[in-house]
Amino acid sequence: MDQSERLEAAIALAQHRGFVFPSGDIYGGTRSAWDYGPYGVALKENIKRQWWKTFVQRRGDMVGLDSAIILPTAVWESSGHLKVFSDPLTESLVTHKRYRADHLFEAYEEKHGHPPENGLADIPDPEHPDKVGQWTEIKMFSGMVKTYLGVVDDESGLHYMRPETAQGIFTDFKAVQQTMRRKPPFGIGQIGKAFRNEITPGNFIFRTREFEQMEIEFFVQPGTDEEWQQTWMDLCWKWFTGLGVDPENIRWFEHPKDKLAHYSKRTVDIEYRFGFVGSEWGELMGVANRTDYDLSVHQEKSGKDLSYFDPATNEKYIPYVIEPSFGLTRALMAFLVDAYHVEETTTADGKTDSRTVLRLDPRLAPFKIAVLPLSRNERLVPTAKEVADLLREHWDVDYDDAQAIGRRYRRQDEVGTPYCVTVDFDSLEDHAVTVRDRDTMQQVRIPIDQLVSHFAGLLVGV
Amino acid sequence: MDQSERLEAAIALAQHRGFVFPSGDIYGGTRSAWDYGPYGVALKENIKRQWWKTFVQRRGDMVGLDSAIILPTAVWESSGHLKVFSDPLTESLVTHKRYRADHLFEAYEEKHGHPPENGLADIPDPEHPDKVGQWTEIKMFSGMVKTYLGVVDDESGLHYMRPETAQGIFTDFKAVQQTMRRKPPFGIGQIGKAFRNEITPGNFIFRTREFEQMEIEFFVQPGTDEEWQQTWMDLCWKWFTGLGVDPENIRWFEHPKDKLAHYSKRTVDIEYRFGFVGSEWGELMGVANRTDYDLSVHQEKSGKDLSYFDPATNEKYIPYVIEPSFGLTRALMAFLVDAYHVEETTTADGKTDSRTVLRLDPRLAPFKIAVLPLSRNERLVPTAKEVADLLREHWDVDYDDAQAIGRRYRRQDEVGTPYCVTVDFDSLEDHAVTVRDRDTMQQVRIPIDQLVSHFAGLLVGV
Repeated sequence: MDQSERLEAAIALAQHRGFVFPSGDIYGGTRSAWDYGPYGVALKENIKRQWWKTFVQRRGDMVGLDSAIILPTAVWESSGHLKVFSDPLTESLVTHKRYRADHLFEAYEEKHGHPPENGLADIPDPEHPDKVGQWTEIKMFSGMVKTYLGVVDDESGLHYMRPETAQGIFTDFKAVQQTMRRKPPFGIGQIGKAFRNEITPGNFIFRTREFEQMEIEFFVQPGTDEEWQQTWMDLCWKWFTGLGVDPENIRWFEHPKDKLAHYSKRTVDIEYRFGFVGSEWGELMGVANRTDYDLSVHQEKSGKDLSYFDPATNEKYIPYVIEPSFGLTRALMAFLVDAYHVEETTTADGKTDSRTVLRLDPRLAPFKIAVLPLSRNERLVPTAKEVADLLREHWDVDYDDAQAIGRRYRRQDEVGTPYCVTVDFDSLEDHAVTVRDRDTMQQVRIPIDQLVSHFAGLLVGV
Repeated sequence: MDQSERLEAAIALAQHRGFVFPSGDIYGGTRSAWDYGPYGVALKENIKRQWWKTFVQRRGDMVGLDSAIILPTAVWESSGHLKVFSDPLTESLVTHKRYRADHLFEAYEEKHGHPPENGLADIPDPEHPDKVGQWTEIKMFSGMVKTYLGVVDDESGLHYMRPETAQGIFTDFKAVQQTMRRKPPFGIGQIGKAFRNEITPGNFIFRTREFEQMEIEFFVQPGTDEEWQQTWMDLCWKWFTGLGVDPENIRWFEHPKDKLAHYSKRTVDIEYRFGFVGSEWGELMGVANRTDYDLSVHQEKSGKDLSYFDPATNEKYIPYVIEPSFGLTRALMAFLVDAYHVEETTTADGKTDSRTVLRLDPRLAPFKIAVLPLSRNERLVPTAKEVADLLREHWDVDYDDAQAIGRRYRRQDEVGTPYCVTVDFDSLEDHAVTVRDRDTMQQVRIPIDQLVSHFAGLLVGV
């Protein structure tokens, strides 16, 4: 199956099997956000944990932070977001639906191999391809999501939700650096929600108005920034491939100099081959060289000294910042699509069959182990429940006693559970169980009192 | 020291040592939220992890969820929040500051032993106690935080931020129950942010407009709800004491029948002795019996069947809901205050000294181990860094080489690090290090190649 078929199948599986639900679905849903069901929240938490372990816990040059979603408006004035964080918006005169003009241009170029010569005049209405060039003038539209806080119901309560977690790191830079006695090169990592008033949310969980980011701001001495950018690019690539993403499905995208964001000296993205209609590759994360832009503007506007004084060299400088910025929910979607496989198998009686299996790295798999009594027999169930409770002390464990055992194996394959433990009638005699491997489908018999150490050896780094 | 001195000292330590910063401090801050620094985010994540392990991972009758912050407005219409989620507001005619009238009444009763006989007419201005009864009429003020989504800039884009995570669980109840093949009694747990437009945010991180909750909605057969409420009350109490909270500092508060929320049959809170001025005890969490209120109204308004059909008994019913709802940031504050101790100690030369120590349970401590080279000597540092890297593979590790070793021990005691590992000149010969215990201050010598297994034995359930 090609990547777009795989995408479609993986999205169907995610919705059908409790990874992701449309938010507020019983009321017709919202286009802005998605809910993560039991498998989805486990997968998402596992991605966060692996990211934090790799980039914060295991590095002596990183610390963590959790800053607020709603910061003072002055932060967004200084950072430039209130001025420049906006998208070009146009409205179809045919359907009165609104679109991002830059997305319309990109779709045109993707199709024709060149940009539209006459701008909007060349662009057809997406829902009525025969209607060409029927658009309102392009207006800039702010992507900032506003809210009102405080008990006086007027503009004085106007606040904004953060469109990126980064600014909270910049405003806390000095406090963190001083309380933790750090000197550059060092970084601050943060995972959290961000909000953007996207004109055209879509592509499942790829573009939503409410989403999650995993961001690092890494503070370095000016002059070492280009080298550090390369270092972080390598680390980010390795993180995805180390967790099982096929290197064939990711690629680098270098932002053209003339299209860089206002703060950036250089930005390079990792793109994943999502297989979207009209645009096969989509941004997964980016590594930006934000220079000293953010700390400089915050120093200027706040009047607080945000420079670093190095007592070893008597040098004082505003650090440059390398920013590896990951979309958490995009990463989840990429891991899901990349893990999706349909395989030919052979049944016990020699027939050809197929199975769907999510080949998720065991560190990411929502449940590590499923405990399956051979049947709902009253002698089997208590032992199966004991085994499940024993394993739950250490890992996320599913318990499933509905339908035939083969069907339950398939169900666990579909949600990526690396190991199934089957309790059968022999178990009552030999105090052992059958452990089945998701990928090889091999089965081994393990005594119950050795199960924990058996899995501890298999589930390393979970 | 009494509890209010302890509170004050713990708050000072938290701000001074990088647990909690005022959000947007370089711009004068916001009253609405706080940021969690490197120690604070680690402590907060550890509380979440222990909660999730206890109430979701280890229970066969629980699953997890992560629903969106912004749900369709219809959800809040149905749940009753748009109608009744409001507070009585009054404005001082003296200072023009706004207050919650119920808080003013409570403070009056706390001081005088009886409620004000003439209502606001008896209440002094908090900032000018000689000015009595100078207030505007009480108005109800919505605690819902509003926002605007979508590209049409009018009321059609009006949305609300959730004031509790619970409603996302109710709207997803059927989807979770069906995809996970669950039958009552079973529950759904969720951790996430919520927003309330508090009239008077205050008491450090106790009452903020942006905060985090850890909530369970536990679905049971009607008739078994009272028993399940008691079961959950016991489990919640045990969770706090099991993680080291002094039972003398928590108590039950039964909500009077006539003051129950609109959805509740019975609500019982656990209060912690925070030592606030004017009101010593504060709500830490609550266990509410929400009956079938929420599922019934959502069924009625959405037109979707939210009942459960039990194939074993052929019974169909709307489950009752027991809701244990924890304030995550309040729990963090309670753990912090409760762990705060100042102790008399004796120095090496027999003098009396005192030390501040956070006696946090090792499972909650931000860093588990600190690695301290005896000095910045060039022969010690490489070994110390190797030891730190070795331990970082498994645990959160701090590395500190600044100032005298005694001072560094005190610094780690202050942030609750259970173990300090000191690398000295003997280490270069015997390949062993000194491990110091935070609470007993006892030191033992451990070979470096046995360190990981040594700590694995000490740091169980981390």
